[in-house]
Amino acid sequence: MGAVIEELTSFLHPDQVSQNETALDQHSHDESYHSVFPPFVVVYPNKTTEVQAIVKAACQHSIPIIPYGLGTSLEGHVIPYDSGITIDFSLMDTIIEVRNEDFLVKVQPGVTRSRLNKELKKHGLFFSVDPGADATLGGMAATNASGTTSVKYGIMRDQVRSLEVVTPSGEIIHTGNLAQKSSSGYNLNGLYVGSEGTLGCITELTLKVYGIPEYSMAARASFPTITDAVDAVVSILQAGIPIARVELVDEESIRQVNSFHHRTYREKPTLFLEFHGNEPGLRHDIDFTKEIVSDHLCEEMYFEEDHTAMVQLWEARHNLAYAYVHGNPGRKLMVTDVCVPISSLAGAIQHARERLNFHQLNGGILGHVGDGNYHALLMIDMEKEGELSRAELFNEEIVTYAINCGGTCTGEHGVGKGKMKYQELEHGEATQVMRQIKKAIDPKGIMNPNKLITM
Amino acid sequence: MGAVIEELTSFLHPDQVSQNETALDQHSHDESYHSVFPPFVVVYPNKTTEVQAIVKAACQHSIPIIPYGLGTSLEGHVIPYDSGITIDFSLMDTIIEVRNEDFLVKVQPGVTRSRLNKELKKHGLFFSVDPGADATLGGMAATNASGTTSVKYGIMRDQVRSLEVVTPSGEIIHTGNLAQKSSSGYNLNGLYVGSEGTLGCITELTLKVYGIPEYSMAARASFPTITDAVDAVVSILQAGIPIARVELVDEESIRQVNSFHHRTYREKPTLFLEFHGNEPGLRHDIDFTKEIVSDHLCEEMYFEEDHTAMVQLWEARHNLAYAYVHGNPGRKLMVTDVCVPISSLAGAIQHARERLNFHQLNGGILGHVGDGNYHALLMIDMEKEGELSRAELFNEEIVTYAINCGGTCTGEHGVGKGKMKYQELEHGEATQVMRQIKKAIDPKGIMNPNKLITM
Repeated sequence: MGAVIEELTSFLHPDQVSQNETALDQHSHDESYHSVFPPFVVVYPNKTTEVQAIVKAACQHSIPIIPYGLGTSLEGHVIPYDSGITIDFSLMDTIIEVRNEDFLVKVQPGVTRSRLNKELKKHGLFFSVDPGADATLGGMAATNASGTTSVKYGIMRDQVRSLEVVTPSGEIIHTGNLAQKSSSGYNLNGLYVGSEGTLGCITELTLKVYGIPEYSMAARASFPTITDAVDAVVSILQAGIPIARVELVDEESIRQVNSFHHRTYREKPTLFLEFHGNEPGLRHDIDFTKEIVSDHLCEEMYFEEDHTAMVQLWEARHNLAYAYVHGNPGRKLMVTDVCVPISSLAGAIQHARERLNFHQLNGGILGHVGDGNYHALLMIDMEKEGELSRAELFNEEIVTYAINCGGTCTGEHGVGKGKMKYQELEHGEATQVMRQIKKAIDPKGIMNPNKLITM
Repeated sequence: MGAVIEELTSFLHPDQVSQNETALDQHSHDESYHSVFPPFVVVYPNKTTEVQAIVKAACQHSIPIIPYGLGTSLEGHVIPYDSGITIDFSLMDTIIEVRNEDFLVKVQPGVTRSRLNKELKKHGLFFSVDPGADATLGGMAATNASGTTSVKYGIMRDQVRSLEVVTPSGEIIHTGNLAQKSSSGYNLNGLYVGSEGTLGCITELTLKVYGIPEYSMAARASFPTITDAVDAVVSILQAGIPIARVELVDEESIRQVNSFHHRTYREKPTLFLEFHGNEPGLRHDIDFTKEIVSDHLCEEMYFEEDHTAMVQLWEARHNLAYAYVHGNPGRKLMVTDVCVPISSLAGAIQHARERLNFHQLNGGILGHVGDGNYHALLMIDMEKEGELSRAELFNEEIVTYAINCGGTCTGEHGVGKGKMKYQELEHGEATQVMRQIKKAIDPKGIMNPNKLITM
């Protein structure tokens, strides 16, 4: 691989090419329990044409390329198990254009969602997709991220209007346009979102944004059992209330929140809710919601209308994984991520709790229950004999249960390395079509190899 | 091709295989001006395994396959220019399952949207996608149809949760699952929606449905000029009013409505609007909308709260193309279909009107202006020297204008035969990736050949 370094330094500044141990180490892992492996070299392009030149060099030398945002993924997506060139997009972090009238924004892939939202606020706009981590938008598109607001605003794939992509052969393409809808050509936009760097490198994104709602209100509602809380969510959805967020946080996780954030939330299964709209409509929705949760034995419902209190509520929810990590030093994080049809949600969560107990695993259950997406969050002692394998078995049981009831092995974290083994089970014969696509677009198999689909 | 008839009749009932002249003629055209061409044979499968056997036979004999719903397309999608086997899905018209709790419905491809909505009404549900024609759901998925409600509920691609597809090699695959969201594998769902039968035959659809809104109200608002009407729409969207429908109908088209439906609507550029929500929220939205349209010189705003009156209003809008056809016997229909960023909409429509006048073409302008999608509707006298070529030139000018301002050559009708010539202009290098996908999935090129993308 030595020859490629020479080639890379022929068009990149020496500062943009690193084999420094710290850099290699930083790019050898994500935020999960997956085993680490360093890249051969890390490069930091400044612009699309540099990415193009890097990909062309890699293509010529048949060396793997691993696109890297901030490394917040949870399924080993960015770990270079086959070595190769990690492209770190941190220098490509410009917010190129805000098109107020069109509700669009054009950004480079290294921009994080919080930075984008800070900028958009000046225009009375916001970007809706909201995973826990402050990920880069390139990474979020690559994994088709979602989060707390997708029940109302949709997932990452719904927000991507167009991507600039450097293909595995080094061509620069655009997958969409600026129009609200199109029936022209194959839907490359939707194909590239969620392709996890296996079909090319995203070098620019055009994203849909929204006007900050006229009025919003958040609430916490606690219930005697998880099943009561989940049943309340199903009833809220059935009633057609256009809820903006509805998150389940179990008893154990509320304890972590209280300890990490010094809160005094009631330590019971809790829903965190948010409503967006105009004031009279929203008050009507909230009255209806109060009736519904009360029918489901809600013990306490607490409203936050004040902006700071709302921010604090969601901060608590977003930092939950970090609260667990903080409260369990030395352990590694495993987060299950299935998504099931709403009608199967209560049963799925009950099954997950039973299997956690059976395997004597400590973990919290939480998630974006309005979508049928929940997570079991485990802190694994990697030194403790059998703990990792019990956790992996538990994850497999959760996945099998979800697929059997018509769901998916991953609602929002993506496949990466961790969920590859479930692709045949979930997609059956369709995996063959996926392989045909991968082979056609990346015949040399250089783009993030051995991720998403076995070839 | 004689051998294939023998093979087809070996597993299909003689009634399911037709070379009858009427059947061939019926399948030789769509509802547009595109030139006609008959298939070699028409087959009427009853079930997926029959479709599979038909595709396998066609694959073995390298004979083209053309999937056919009801022939309501407007860009020649279903016309068998290379001859071959037309698969008519009219016998596969079962509504398989309504999953109330999951807001999902499973149907065969031959079910029409009006029949589905009739069934869903019993469950308090509705299917949102609403093009003018009473198309089949298989056809609507194949072309990624949309229509009047997409400004609120999204387009066909947003409603498809999973498809059962017979691939060009005769495998049966499922492109998705029953969960609300997924980040597992490549997004075959989104790829097959809008692939226009070029990557396989859709044999079953799982679709998202919605609860019938608590309250809805429709309105007509007339303006002195089209530009005033379009500017009013832009202001309504900017204000964040979650409007369910907002349709522009120009003066000429209002005249067609009045004559066809015996109405007395004011013959001025008009917006047809609809609002869905809870009553207090909706009244607030309507008050705000009234202020906005009045700022844009609205001459008259007329509300319809009564269900029958609302149905009549939308019936008038939906039947507009038929009103034109009825009012112009012997002529053929051409409908332009560009979609532009909202900020370019007023200019685009003004340009279209100028070019219509320049080319001395009679036509109406109307469309789903909340999406930036508008149509110029022309009735072409095919006998009149130069009229078709002037109309084609006009269409090209409209498309070029739209692409130059970041839009698309087709917002909802699809590419078919008619928009193939604009694919390179719109997608540039990305057409090469589209070709790679087509070649990989359909190496023999038997699925609806010479549609969507030139190979």
